[in-house]
Amino acid sequence: MQAQAAGELALIAKIRTLAAGQTAPRITRGIGDDCALLRTKPGEELAITTDFSIEDRHFRLGWHNPVAIGHRALARGLSDLAAMGATPLASFLSLALPKRLTVAKGKTGSWMDHFYEGFLALARTEGAALAGGDLSECALVVADVMVIGTVPRGKALLRSGARPGDKLYVTGALGAGLLGLRILEGRRKVDMEAENAALHRHFYPQPRIAQGVALRGVASAAMDLSDGLSTDLARLCEESKVAAVVEARKLPRAPGATLDEALHGGDDYELLFTAPAKARVPRSIGGVMVTEIGEIRRRAKGRAPVTLVDGGKKTALAAHGWEHFSQ
Amino acid sequence: MQAQAAGELALIAKIRTLAAGQTAPRITRGIGDDCALLRTKPGEELAITTDFSIEDRHFRLGWHNPVAIGHRALARGLSDLAAMGATPLASFLSLALPKRLTVAKGKTGSWMDHFYEGFLALARTEGAALAGGDLSECALVVADVMVIGTVPRGKALLRSGARPGDKLYVTGALGAGLLGLRILEGRRKVDMEAENAALHRHFYPQPRIAQGVALRGVASAAMDLSDGLSTDLARLCEESKVAAVVEARKLPRAPGATLDEALHGGDDYELLFTAPAKARVPRSIGGVMVTEIGEIRRRAKGRAPVTLVDGGKKTALAAHGWEHFSQ
Repeated sequence: MQAQAAGELALIAKIRTLAAGQTAPRITRGIGDDCALLRTKPGEELAITTDFSIEDRHFRLGWHNPVAIGHRALARGLSDLAAMGATPLASFLSLALPKRLTVAKGKTGSWMDHFYEGFLALARTEGAALAGGDLSECALVVADVMVIGTVPRGKALLRSGARPGDKLYVTGALGAGLLGLRILEGRRKVDMEAENAALHRHFYPQPRIAQGVALRGVASAAMDLSDGLSTDLARLCEESKVAAVVEARKLPRAPGATLDEALHGGDDYELLFTAPAKARVPRSIGGVMVTEIGEIRRRAKGRAPVTLVDGGKKTALAAHGWEHFSQ
Repeated sequence: MQAQAAGELALIAKIRTLAAGQTAPRITRGIGDDCALLRTKPGEELAITTDFSIEDRHFRLGWHNPVAIGHRALARGLSDLAAMGATPLASFLSLALPKRLTVAKGKTGSWMDHFYEGFLALARTEGAALAGGDLSECALVVADVMVIGTVPRGKALLRSGARPGDKLYVTGALGAGLLGLRILEGRRKVDMEAENAALHRHFYPQPRIAQGVALRGVASAAMDLSDGLSTDLARLCEESKVAAVVEARKLPRAPGATLDEALHGGDDYELLFTAPAKARVPRSIGGVMVTEIGEIRRRAKGRAPVTLVDGGKKTALAAHGWEHFSQ
């Protein structure tokens, strides 16, 4: 670990080292994937994930309405379940917030009421009933969401299963998360239809649960795109010890999104997955399109893990997505 | 819910209402106890709890060393498992902190390294291996700890099982948590032996896992004392729909602690439990003493749920322990 420039990945690698050597026979998979896996009953594993949503980091009170903030907080965790091919079982919400946000304004309810409204609506739709949590006062809003799901034993989609020769896929379209953010920041203008679509995707991302379940037994590796394709694909390559080539022209972009936004934008919550060249990968699952965007290669020493092919040009694709502690 | 004076209890009651009517057959018990219970394999339930530890609310960087902060963050969750009679299975840690605390100072490691040191040492001792979590940058330190344990099906100790005529008990001694805090604040002076003992208990509380397990089948209700006896006993009475009488002279006080500190002090992490008058309650479990401190009565309309008998005087014991959003 470099003391000055330690990014999130380096810190997590360090925590993995510190936590190594723990005896825990029922933890099938610990730190390093979208969810941890716990063995419970025969034939089943629990997939568990926790995700922060922090004011001024994951959302802004001035830009995001509380219903959307609650929805997004849970969607982050559900998206991790989707990436494991798991089905939601229960959710837990730890919410710290300033006292003023708990106070009802007239008949419309408090900020906190609306936060729960967004959270619970998605919990109902996805079968992730709120089972507990914690509540505390805090100078800023910090939500930590834990989601538990189930997956048939040995069927979870891991980040580590990609092999050279596998094809690389994404669900849906990329770039709407970042495009929506830039519209909120006043940094980007697109036509009204694209703007509405991007903002809706940004405020109400849809976790790809049904798609993850359908990919069990098909995908060789999977993860969700929360921090941007360039960053997340580098992580998948790291866990699978492989390299990847992405073809720019194949990338499905959200309406109005640039190539840059599709490559590096976070908050898309689509699935990134690999499958053997011979696998039967459907072109769409549950109404969400599936697109081949490149392939997995052998890792070569001294070469970047991810290469972008754009026209005839090949360049190393640096991880320019979201990484905490790296700014 | 009163808009202006809504304390933590009122807010949680409101969340329970909002979350009511969720369909979740595998959630045996949701919001309202020390842990949620999830049915997994036949004969077993999972006990799950999440607990915040927030800078300037649960600890101060100037008063608490990072090893103690890490220990306490996990101890809070383990204490909730103990209160259910559950055995630890795994832990999850979501940690948000300022970047400077991730930077190593010379050879001694960073603040974050020492936080994990305290957390992981307790995790090893108690069999709660760290299985995952989240990491984020934040202006202040916010840790959210999730602990998962197992308990034989139907054997979990609930808050709701106390019946009129049951005797009331606590493990260990009370008041050291608050006495330790007041010593740190410079508000209390006691002799050096009592000071060392109180500070040690304050920094390194011991979750009563073995005691909780031993109380399965003996206790009729149980919870852990995290917010102070007066507050927590009122919660137990509320969940069991009973009243309670506490005898001041019977209260086991930590060395140097006043009656007030034993009654209202938080952070003791002892177990509070009830058992039928005929039950065989051991005088000590695993070297920790067990003391009868009062009994459970029928609830009477218009009367306070908890009565304190001190000498010949009976007074209503108001909940003066820790409650968020009430200051």
